[in-house]
Amino acid sequence: LQSGRFIRMRRLLSSLHPAETAHLLESLPPAERKVCWPIINPELRGEVLSYIGEDVRTSLMVDMDTADLLNATEDLDTDDVVDLLQDLPDHVMQEVLRAMDSQRRRRIEVILGYEEDTAGGLMNTDVVTVRSDITLEVVLRYLRMLGELPENTDSLYVVDHNDKYLGTLQLSQVVSRSRSMTVREVMSHQIEPIPANMSDEDVAHRFEKHDLISAPVVDKDNHLLGRITIDDVVDVIRDVAEHSMLSMAGLGEDEDTFAPVKRSVHRRSVWLGINLLTAFLASWVIGLFDTTIEKVVALAVLMPIVASMGGIAGSQTLTLVIRSMALGQLNDNNKRWLLRKEIAVGAVNGIIWAIAIAFVTYLWFQEVGIAVLIGIAIIINLLAASLAGVTIPLALKKVGIDPALSGSVLLTTITDVIGFMAFLGFATLFIV
Amino acid sequence: LQSGRFIRMRRLLSSLHPAETAHLLESLPPAERKVCWPIINPELRGEVLSYIGEDVRTSLMVDMDTADLLNATEDLDTDDVVDLLQDLPDHVMQEVLRAMDSQRRRRIEVILGYEEDTAGGLMNTDVVTVRSDITLEVVLRYLRMLGELPENTDSLYVVDHNDKYLGTLQLSQVVSRSRSMTVREVMSHQIEPIPANMSDEDVAHRFEKHDLISAPVVDKDNHLLGRITIDDVVDVIRDVAEHSMLSMAGLGEDEDTFAPVKRSVHRRSVWLGINLLTAFLASWVIGLFDTTIEKVVALAVLMPIVASMGGIAGSQTLTLVIRSMALGQLNDNNKRWLLRKEIAVGAVNGIIWAIAIAFVTYLWFQEVGIAVLIGIAIIINLLAASLAGVTIPLALKKVGIDPALSGSVLLTTITDVIGFMAFLGFATLFIV
Repeated sequence: LQSGRFIRMRRLLSSLHPAETAHLLESLPPAERKVCWPIINPELRGEVLSYIGEDVRTSLMVDMDTADLLNATEDLDTDDVVDLLQDLPDHVMQEVLRAMDSQRRRRIEVILGYEEDTAGGLMNTDVVTVRSDITLEVVLRYLRMLGELPENTDSLYVVDHNDKYLGTLQLSQVVSRSRSMTVREVMSHQIEPIPANMSDEDVAHRFEKHDLISAPVVDKDNHLLGRITIDDVVDVIRDVAEHSMLSMAGLGEDEDTFAPVKRSVHRRSVWLGINLLTAFLASWVIGLFDTTIEKVVALAVLMPIVASMGGIAGSQTLTLVIRSMALGQLNDNNKRWLLRKEIAVGAVNGIIWAIAIAFVTYLWFQEVGIAVLIGIAIIINLLAASLAGVTIPLALKKVGIDPALSGSVLLTTITDVIGFMAFLGFATLFIV
Repeated sequence: LQSGRFIRMRRLLSSLHPAETAHLLESLPPAERKVCWPIINPELRGEVLSYIGEDVRTSLMVDMDTADLLNATEDLDTDDVVDLLQDLPDHVMQEVLRAMDSQRRRRIEVILGYEEDTAGGLMNTDVVTVRSDITLEVVLRYLRMLGELPENTDSLYVVDHNDKYLGTLQLSQVVSRSRSMTVREVMSHQIEPIPANMSDEDVAHRFEKHDLISAPVVDKDNHLLGRITIDDVVDVIRDVAEHSMLSMAGLGEDEDTFAPVKRSVHRRSVWLGINLLTAFLASWVIGLFDTTIEKVVALAVLMPIVASMGGIAGSQTLTLVIRSMALGQLNDNNKRWLLRKEIAVGAVNGIIWAIAIAFVTYLWFQEVGIAVLIGIAIIINLLAASLAGVTIPLALKKVGIDPALSGSVLLTTITDVIGFMAFLGFATLFIV
């Protein structure tokens, strides 16, 4: 960056909200990112980092020393601090923790004790608790004494003398009900507490289903540990939704669009390699029929149509099934219904397009035999595609493999092999 | 359903939260859905409907008459009522509106005046407003007089005597600051009001970026119209994230996994038809070289490898670019950098896999010429794939076409045509 642009950049950066600074940094190529990072106000760096995706964040934090990190994380919520610490090498994390004051360290260590992708890892330990036997008048006096409530506080949690969770007291109730009522009379039991070891995806489902803004987190003995607020869940919801799309192309959801070439090459070449194996398998199938192709070269011209129609139909079914699984809609009761339905769709579409393709093929090559043959191969392949589109993700899930990641490779392998096999095999039997 | 199961079903349904009932209905095949719907408590039907996706919802509402609809929507927030009304035929909607009391009708008509996919269409008109010159003591007295606040109220809005928006008063401030302070001293200006005509995607970006829980909505003269709460935005965030994945397979985000066969066939066959055109184009390219294939049948065996490697590499780039565009990360400054980077990735991966594929090809066919040829074709096609993966979505967006929907078809057309053209074309020139 030239020095004029540099000064303008500094002015721009100092006027932005940390979320916007984060967005700007994520949109910059790596070299310019490294130039801009030091210009950002050290006090705000922690908040900026908390808005940035994991991949980019790690690349920025690598150059910060313990003092920088401590300074940056000072004003952050405990859950955001934990997110940042988890990206650091273990010894750096320990150093930063040691440098914190003991109360904050203890709070953070509670969260660090849980896996990153569980409710415990998502939660914030800054909660305001009250007892059930006091009146709202006393609650109000207590809150006024605290002076400031943690960010996004919309409710207080009611606990007993052993810190066990009893209920939720919404601020909207505190201000609208009579001051002489007790917490017990006003508190709500509607929000079920979330167990700390619940997976973050299940937490997201719970929030989405019940339109929650925040929810208490408890250990297995019902002790209140902290709370999860929707702003942290939103990230999980987006990650879950994006995960399927990115996985289907062999990418991770933290994939940085502006990652350096070397890292991108490495990640993507793995995926290309896996796909190459399936491509060779398809070629091997074609190779079985090389003498047939030599005699009727029209088969070579038409065979990609059979394979690609199967691939498209199959990936439609696959996408729908993967999405239903991510939303938790598929279960033992309805999966057989879905399979029957998808096969019916495959059959009807197979017949429609078989007729259309056979017709065009006849016009092109003036050969009834080849036209009939390609029609039959299309029907077979679309049926196979429907069957594979439903059964592959279900089977992968059963054996614990992510269906979004491996589903599409397996599916196209099947539609390629069956497509070529049907088309060239029948040709060998009936035409040549 | 047999009558025993029927009774158990009725008992189950009456014990569930409306959100869970909605989830259950969405997971049922259409026939069983129609059986279960009448069992659900009529009072709760509106809330259940508000949790159901558009496709399924419309199919359930079709059988309800005006009285049913009025009954079901009675206890809903205004924004949820509007969502339901918008799925109805126009004359039914008018009938339901006429049957409402006039205050509610007016509130709903304000929202109906805005497009469904704008801030105005998302907002809820049930807001609590206060003046800036009163003290928190007076605010508390006023709130206690109201008795009950609208669901998910975490803040009040401050307006002047013309109903113009001045600021936000968080409940957490009302309860924690001194009662003698005025609203003006305590209110926050941090949350910028959202213009009613902002698109729902931009609203979602704003909420995500700033970790908002709720935000005020204003008209172009800064009059307060209502508020948007995060629970409504979560649906938009998920829809936006899912939209790309489903579009890439030619599906809509309201696609019902359990839709009847007929509807599914119709929707998907359109997509198959479009893809068929591109498949025929690829076949036509192959047909140009039929005499070459006749002489060297190994070309027919190997050609799908060239096309599929290009397709995979291209769709990786495409997926990443589409996602960056959806997140608003791509702009004029960085798109050229991204293009250069993706071409570099394509070149490096092209060379790596060209060598690997050439090697295997040599082992298989013992022909140096074909091995060199396929290597060159792979490099050309991976470069073309990178170029197309970046430029296609940018170009489509410029002309106003959804890149997620048409991007993948266009991309595979290009990688198929260039792959076959390079491989078979060079073969014709140099080998035969």
